[in-house]
Amino acid sequence: MKKQFIDKLSPGDKVDDLFVLSEKTMSQKKNGDNYLNFTFSDKTGDIKGVAWDNIDQIAAAAKSGDFVRVKGGISDYKGGLQLTVRQIDFCTLESVDPADFLPVTKYDPDKMFEQLKRTVEQYVTDKYLKELIQAFWDDKDFVEKFKRAPAAKKMHHAYIGGLLEHTLSMTVLVQKIAEHYKRTLNGINMSLLLTGTIFHDIGKIREFEYNYKIDYSDEGRLVSHIVIGCGIVDEKIRQVQDFPKQTEMLLKHLIVSHHGSKEFGSPEVPRTIEAVLLNHIDNIDAKMNGLREFIEKEAPDESWTSYNYMMGCHLYKGIKE
Amino acid sequence: MKKQFIDKLSPGDKVDDLFVLSEKTMSQKKNGDNYLNFTFSDKTGDIKGVAWDNIDQIAAAAKSGDFVRVKGGISDYKGGLQLTVRQIDFCTLESVDPADFLPVTKYDPDKMFEQLKRTVEQYVTDKYLKELIQAFWDDKDFVEKFKRAPAAKKMHHAYIGGLLEHTLSMTVLVQKIAEHYKRTLNGINMSLLLTGTIFHDIGKIREFEYNYKIDYSDEGRLVSHIVIGCGIVDEKIRQVQDFPKQTEMLLKHLIVSHHGSKEFGSPEVPRTIEAVLLNHIDNIDAKMNGLREFIEKEAPDESWTSYNYMMGCHLYKGIKE
Amino acid sequence: MKKQFIDKLSPGDKVDDLFVLSEKTMSQKKNGDNYLNFTFSDKTGDIKGVAWDNIDQIAAAAKSGDFVRVKGGISDYKGGLQLTVRQIDFCTLESVDPADFLPVTKYDPDKMFEQLKRTVEQYVTDKYLKELIQAFWDDKDFVEKFKRAPAAKKMHHAYIGGLLEHTLSMTVLVQKIAEHYKRTLNGINMSLLLTGTIFHDIGKIREFEYNYKIDYSDEGRLVSHIVIGCGIVDEKIRQVQDFPKQTEMLLKHLIVSHHGSKEFGSPEVPRTIEAVLLNHIDNIDAKMNGLREFIEKEAPDESWTSYNYMMGCHLYKGIKE
Amino acid sequence: MKKQFIDKLSPGDKVDDLFVLSEKTMSQKKNGDNYLNFTFSDKTGDIKGVAWDNIDQIAAAAKSGDFVRVKGGISDYKGGLQLTVRQIDFCTLESVDPADFLPVTKYDPDKMFEQLKRTVEQYVTDKYLKELIQAFWDDKDFVEKFKRAPAAKKMHHAYIGGLLEHTLSMTVLVQKIAEHYKRTLNGINMSLLLTGTIFHDIGKIREFEYNYKIDYSDEGRLVSHIVIGCGIVDEKIRQVQDFPKQTEMLLKHLIVSHHGSKEFGSPEVPRTIEAVLLNHIDNIDAKMNGLREFIEKEAPDESWTSYNYMMGCHLYKGIKE
Amino acid sequence: MKKQFIDKLSPGDKVDDLFVLSEKTMSQKKNGDNYLNFTFSDKTGDIKGVAWDNIDQIAAAAKSGDFVRVKGGISDYKGGLQLTVRQIDFCTLESVDPADFLPVTKYDPDKMFEQLKRTVEQYVTDKYLKELIQAFWDDKDFVEKFKRAPAAKKMHHAYIGGLLEHTLSMTVLVQKIAEHYKRTLNGINMSLLLTGTIFHDIGKIREFEYNYKIDYSDEGRLVSHIVIGCGIVDEKIRQVQDFPKQTEMLLKHLIVSHHGSKEFGSPEVPRTIEAVLLNHIDNIDAKMNGLREFIEKEAPDESWTSYNYMMGCHLYKGIKE
Amino acid sequence: MKKQFIDKLSPGDKVDDLFVLSEKTMSQKKNGDNYLNFTFSDKTGDIKGVAWDNIDQIAAAAKSGDFVRVKGGISDYKGGLQLTVRQIDFCTLESVDPADFLPVTKYDPDKMFEQLKRTVEQYVTDKYLKELIQAFWDDKDFVEKFKRAPAAKKMHHAYIGGLLEHTLSMTVLVQKIAEHYKRTLNGINMSLLLTGTIFHDIGKIREFEYNYKIDYSDEGRLVSHIVIGCGIVDEKIRQVQDFPKQTEMLLKHLIVSHHGSKEFGSPEVPRTIEAVLLNHIDNIDAKMNGLREFIEKEAPDESWTSYNYMMGCHLYKGIKE
Repeated sequence: MKKQFIDKLSPGDKVDDLFVLSEKTMSQKKNGDNYLNFTFSDKTGDIKGVAWDNIDQIAAAAKSGDFVRVKGGISDYKGGLQLTVRQIDFCTLESVDPADFLPVTKYDPDKMFEQLKRTVEQYVTDKYLKELIQAFWDDKDFVEKFKRAPAAKKMHHAYIGGLLEHTLSMTVLVQKIAEHYKRTLNGINMSLLLTGTIFHDIGKIREFEYNYKIDYSDEGRLVSHIVIGCGIVDEKIRQVQDFPKQTEMLLKHLIVSHHGSKEFGSPEVPRTIEAVLLNHIDNIDAKMNGLREFIEKEAPDESWTSYNYMMGCHLYKGIKE
Repeated sequence: MKKQFIDKLSPGDKVDDLFVLSEKTMSQKKNGDNYLNFTFSDKTGDIKGVAWDNIDQIAAAAKSGDFVRVKGGISDYKGGLQLTVRQIDFCTLESVDPADFLPVTKYDPDKMFEQLKRTVEQYVTDKYLKELIQAFWDDKDFVEKFKRAPAAKKMHHAYIGGLLEHTLSMTVLVQKIAEHYKRTLNGINMSLLLTGTIFHDIGKIREFEYNYKIDYSDEGRLVSHIVIGCGIVDEKIRQVQDFPKQTEMLLKHLIVSHHGSKEFGSPEVPRTIEAVLLNHIDNIDAKMNGLREFIEKEAPDESWTSYNYMMGCHLYKGIKE
Repeated sequence: MKKQFIDKLSPGDKVDDLFVLSEKTMSQKKNGDNYLNFTFSDKTGDIKGVAWDNIDQIAAAAKSGDFVRVKGGISDYKGGLQLTVRQIDFCTLESVDPADFLPVTKYDPDKMFEQLKRTVEQYVTDKYLKELIQAFWDDKDFVEKFKRAPAAKKMHHAYIGGLLEHTLSMTVLVQKIAEHYKRTLNGINMSLLLTGTIFHDIGKIREFEYNYKIDYSDEGRLVSHIVIGCGIVDEKIRQVQDFPKQTEMLLKHLIVSHHGSKEFGSPEVPRTIEAVLLNHIDNIDAKMNGLREFIEKEAPDESWTSYNYMMGCHLYKGIKE
Repeated sequence: MKKQFIDKLSPGDKVDDLFVLSEKTMSQKKNGDNYLNFTFSDKTGDIKGVAWDNIDQIAAAAKSGDFVRVKGGISDYKGGLQLTVRQIDFCTLESVDPADFLPVTKYDPDKMFEQLKRTVEQYVTDKYLKELIQAFWDDKDFVEKFKRAPAAKKMHHAYIGGLLEHTLSMTVLVQKIAEHYKRTLNGINMSLLLTGTIFHDIGKIREFEYNYKIDYSDEGRLVSHIVIGCGIVDEKIRQVQDFPKQTEMLLKHLIVSHHGSKEFGSPEVPRTIEAVLLNHIDNIDAKMNGLREFIEKEAPDESWTSYNYMMGCHLYKGIKE
Repeated sequence: MKKQFIDKLSPGDKVDDLFVLSEKTMSQKKNGDNYLNFTFSDKTGDIKGVAWDNIDQIAAAAKSGDFVRVKGGISDYKGGLQLTVRQIDFCTLESVDPADFLPVTKYDPDKMFEQLKRTVEQYVTDKYLKELIQAFWDDKDFVEKFKRAPAAKKMHHAYIGGLLEHTLSMTVLVQKIAEHYKRTLNGINMSLLLTGTIFHDIGKIREFEYNYKIDYSDEGRLVSHIVIGCGIVDEKIRQVQDFPKQTEMLLKHLIVSHHGSKEFGSPEVPRTIEAVLLNHIDNIDAKMNGLREFIEKEAPDESWTSYNYMMGCHLYKGIKE
Repeated sequence: MKKQFIDKLSPGDKVDDLFVLSEKTMSQKKNGDNYLNFTFSDKTGDIKGVAWDNIDQIAAAAKSGDFVRVKGGISDYKGGLQLTVRQIDFCTLESVDPADFLPVTKYDPDKMFEQLKRTVEQYVTDKYLKELIQAFWDDKDFVEKFKRAPAAKKMHHAYIGGLLEHTLSMTVLVQKIAEHYKRTLNGINMSLLLTGTIFHDIGKIREFEYNYKIDYSDEGRLVSHIVIGCGIVDEKIRQVQDFPKQTEMLLKHLIVSHHGSKEFGSPEVPRTIEAVLLNHIDNIDAKMNGLREFIEKEAPDESWTSYNYMMGCHLYKGIKE
């Protein structure tokens, strides 16, 4: 179990722990001797490394992308830290805990999932949608992925458990907002809207790879989470007897249209009240989470943040109550 | 007091009541005689009219845009109704009740205003913002306009009292949504956000004319409600001693940026969390109200609505719980 | 069997045949008597109609959208023709031949389908894709719909059999164009490209209704033919043992990306050579067919056509060899 | 008073003068000893610096952004110059002349202001607008800022006095262009157009900070110069008795609409002839000045300039009379 | 010579004069008799016409688009005027004066052309450009077309002589504006800029047809005035010995880039100071003329105009000095 | 004749051959001595160089952009190669073979040109177009440039002979595609379409410089290949007696519109069937060649390519038959 994390290392520390070998390059000294430059990573950041001796042996031990055990020491170099490497050993995937290398949600996935289940029990009254959701809950493999998947590679909820955290947060908003408009809009279909909320991004369990790093999968880049998600829902609907055609259509519409417009990747725009609401609630939750993640990483004593790509501007942090 | 409304007239009715004379044109019969065509309006709709006799006298009585008392009778014509006019008399503005001619909110403006005041008392804790709001509440002329102004000419909340209804609805959403994110975003400034919500559209009390019809004012078209609104807030801030410069700046930023992007008329994009939230909440409330108004006017037994310009598509109404 | 088609009627003709009653409105004469106005349609066009007598009986016989048998006569009216109606009788859907009311391809669907099958046999060499295609051919219900479906509501191939005609034409182009680039691009996957071509628009068999008129289905408007199509392919892939995951992904990518960009409704842009080619070939075939249909309807002796929405301009027809 | 400017330094010079300490970083030699790297700036450019001795003392003397007195010498390093530092002393803001550190207009602000006043006297005949302008001229604090403010952070007139230079240049163009069209357009309101020209960018006196460097102020980024400018005009209008409502509205319209379209930050598009003209004249003057500044900095003997962001292209300089 | 113009006709007038027969349709009375409906036009407007007798003879006399001599009388009909036709005779093109049917500039083309020539003499000092312009002036056919061509089909200067009027107005602006910047921009090439101004739209002499109506020519729609214009200049440059290649390139650049950006039809953006200026001056002159023409046609006593497509808004006319 | 190409050099090689001196900079060692850094180039790539001795003499021998003969040796440096320079001698343009320094087509230009001529003979039947093409073939200077010109600076066919290769490939596609649609579109004008294909990019023979490097010419940037191309065709049309005006117009239309829309630089959109086809075929051939060139340079064993600017995405290379 990994104990030494990069953001806690100081000059003078001895190092003997697991890292990802992110980069490795052979360089030459003036006298013609070779030496090695490295970048090592874990979930807390990156550190530069160098090896002066045993070059060939160390170089042969592992390649970029491998997990390695590193022995060496920390020193200052050009205003930063440097890991001088004495020995590198290759580690199998089985021997590492991915959680040491991947950012994770701050919340307990199991508790989040239980809260989501309670929300379903309370608000989803439609017989068929209840059965459909139950079919998902009964699928152990699905539940495991649903608890682990990130909601993005960057921008917002870009960490293990991010999809569940985003989904749960949206169901809370759905209750609040839909309730507010229920009186005047007589006829927001809560069963449908909540089910759509829960599964709107479900294709992301396959759009991303998130075993040892978070990145797009081939399927994700080629087919898109919207189309993958409709396929996942299709598969489960086949397990529910007499699932009504219209409900299927409206549920898929929520998945298909939740990006709000074609230029954002939705093949159809929202055409039901539920779809319009879902698109807006998704947007708010993504923005609020993305801004929180962004601002947490900013220097605390500046009035303005660095440029934020999601909002397209610098953000002002000058006043808080 | 007007008793006969256009949407209740039937063939055979005798008419003797007030209408707006929306259109008046002189036409010629084959035999060369003149006759008059009219459109009359009230808050419930329009009706075509015709006069065959006393042409010159009737024509001289009033011009397009005037309020008139009309005497005549209703008959069928080409599948619709027609008002055959015997007499028209001009009416002064003082003699009519504008409420008979303008669409109004379904809610009681006084009750909405009281609810808004209670929300302020409960959530706005900043000393200066409380004083600022009180300065607005103490301005009788302002309060009267604030209770009457529409939020738009068409699209959403396009009726007397619409601005207050929209504003109140948004404050309810602000409480719900801001509360949801308060825990994680430690530092949503509720005093600021609520004050900004209350006054984000305040320029609309001068952007529109809404005495006898709802239309843009000259000032509205030339200066825009965003700039008018900042001026109104400026004026009241001068009445609050030592109002902090930074609070003023952040409050105006909420007004300035609430359309969310330049192409929608905001000179600056949202650059604070409060401004991002306000933009989204404004958007949701406009959409939900606009959709309700739109769908209420649609034929109830069709699966699809006519084309909706706000959403850019036909909407599906096929299923409701 | 219908014998009298609207584009062949002349003044003086007696009429006794089937039409769609497209519009029906009650009007009033000056003397207060009612009369009826109609529009009747078949696959060759529209004609106005009028009924002066037996009004109530005729009005009760059928409603807009019904198939009816009409008895009456043709006369000139305001430079066009008018059908004076004596009698209207309702007809059940079963008693009409939809082909009388729907535009159809000029080619024999069975021959087109045979040609398509031969192309597959010749060029699709991949074992799994062959099996997949065979699974489609073995599905009688599918084949029937595939032969009948239109490729659009308007713009191009907007007629019964249009989807098959468009698909077949594209496979011919694929052979020609892919062959041209095969030498230099060593590695256009013909099996994949042809299979993708055949099924790129397959969702259109459910995106449209085309029994008695061509229009979008509810599913079409809510889910889009791209997502429907992936679902149809999914279903058939389950019938092929060990269908390779990568082939499935690449085949779906061809469907998903064939509109070429997000703003045209593709959730992903083309990311393989085959997908880039398919997008262009689809585009050319749609344009060429759309232009042909458009120009055929234009006045033959004008240099310029009316405005063409597909191309965004007037087209010049001034010279042909 | 500063005498040594960066663009005039040569190898071998002794240095003892004021600079902005733009950057300061601690580095390490191979032997583990620390040394310091600097960037020093003044209005003529930047120079790299290095300190090998007295490191801790020098490092503690000042931080990035401070004004400092530097003692040392100039040498060649890697094809450029380097300032080897012996001593650094902190300087208070009061002890420096900002003009040594900020780019300034080539023209005399007082003379420009006098010319502007004469133009007003000659062309502004409207009683209320004359009074309004006089109220501005009587405000000493305003006049001082108006003479100093830049018109931009970069792009065009990005220097002290730039706003006045830009404004004056535009008033000259207004006279020329408006006169040309006056005959045909009978009714260009010269009083209004000139007053609008003078104050169209007036918000920039607060949109920027320009005491020691030119940058956006918080208010500038949050509220925008258009809204700030309307507020400044509002304030002065209150000092003019009976200022006509319509004139106020039209003057603000010139400020509000002068960017020409919403996507460029104007909440309303130009809706009067004067506003259309002002937008174009602003545009021309910004382009002409921006191009001049840009081309002056380019290598004189190349046919093409580097990429120009304002115009979106490389510019051709190949021929001049 | 035509004496009776449509805008001067009154009820009761006898008519015997030339008109364009813009429309002609055969209609049927209730009793089955045919009658004829017409629209007649001249440069002052349109009038409806009708013929009850001699139908066949009148119908055969001329077709839509022909010039005709009409005999008949004027009467009121449905609030407008109607020309009851007794006789129609075909007229050859030779027998009509096009000036009776086409809108024309208010200025004297010969005087405008003389003023343009004087400007050239005064400001164009480059030997080759002088020769080039002289080659144009020496081409009688060119000069005649240059004096007659319109600058547009609608929008601005859409009348006979409009191109010359627009060109001349621009040369005046060029003198004023270029002079203003000459001091600071040392090196505006006046010879080049003025020559480019004179010929920037020269392709319009072939882009339009303007013998009997103003419309696009086939060449205009297929090749565009920018490309036509470069060809015209090419042709004349061949007549000037040793015309410098660089001057030719820069002159064509002014023609090629004068629309300012690709989406407005310029294959290249402006890349010289002269080209930037020309684009702006063209824009101002088009806007000012277009607005004048537009406002002249508007009702004089309304504060707001109807929708203006060129500016994309309603315009405010409320105040003029 | 150059024998040593950069992509074949290895550590230990002696060098004595021609290169382009792409970059030359003087640097300083710690001890204050100067040394020289270089970049040398040929058609196969770049290599870094350094000179420690004879600095002044070597520095004076040539400047950036010159062709030089370099004597020295190759060694490893920082994981790459380095050319240690002993001597540099300037070479005149005449003494080098540009083909050693410019990328070239893989095909034989003479054979490609012969194939193009045969295609013309077979398919171009129009008398005047045949004569026009012959006039081009008879122009030795033209043919030489046509065989050498590149089709782009980067993106696609960006090498000597690229224009001819692109043009020939398109004529093959034209035959295939036009033939396919000829039956249904009765009236694709093959003579016109092929001639247009051959000359659609002909302006590129002057839009680029391609003697010693491929770059835009001044004329190319200022006038654009579309306008240059029309001028070239104009010139040759003058050599064909009685060339029909309409054919000229339609041929130029193919050149003018072949980019498909204004924002891509075509002053007019395609308005004939031939122009629509040409635009699509140009697009396909550019994409296919651009993708080939791009993928050839990518690492062979990765599933995904680096970012491709032409397609706006990463491309998937995972499967090939």
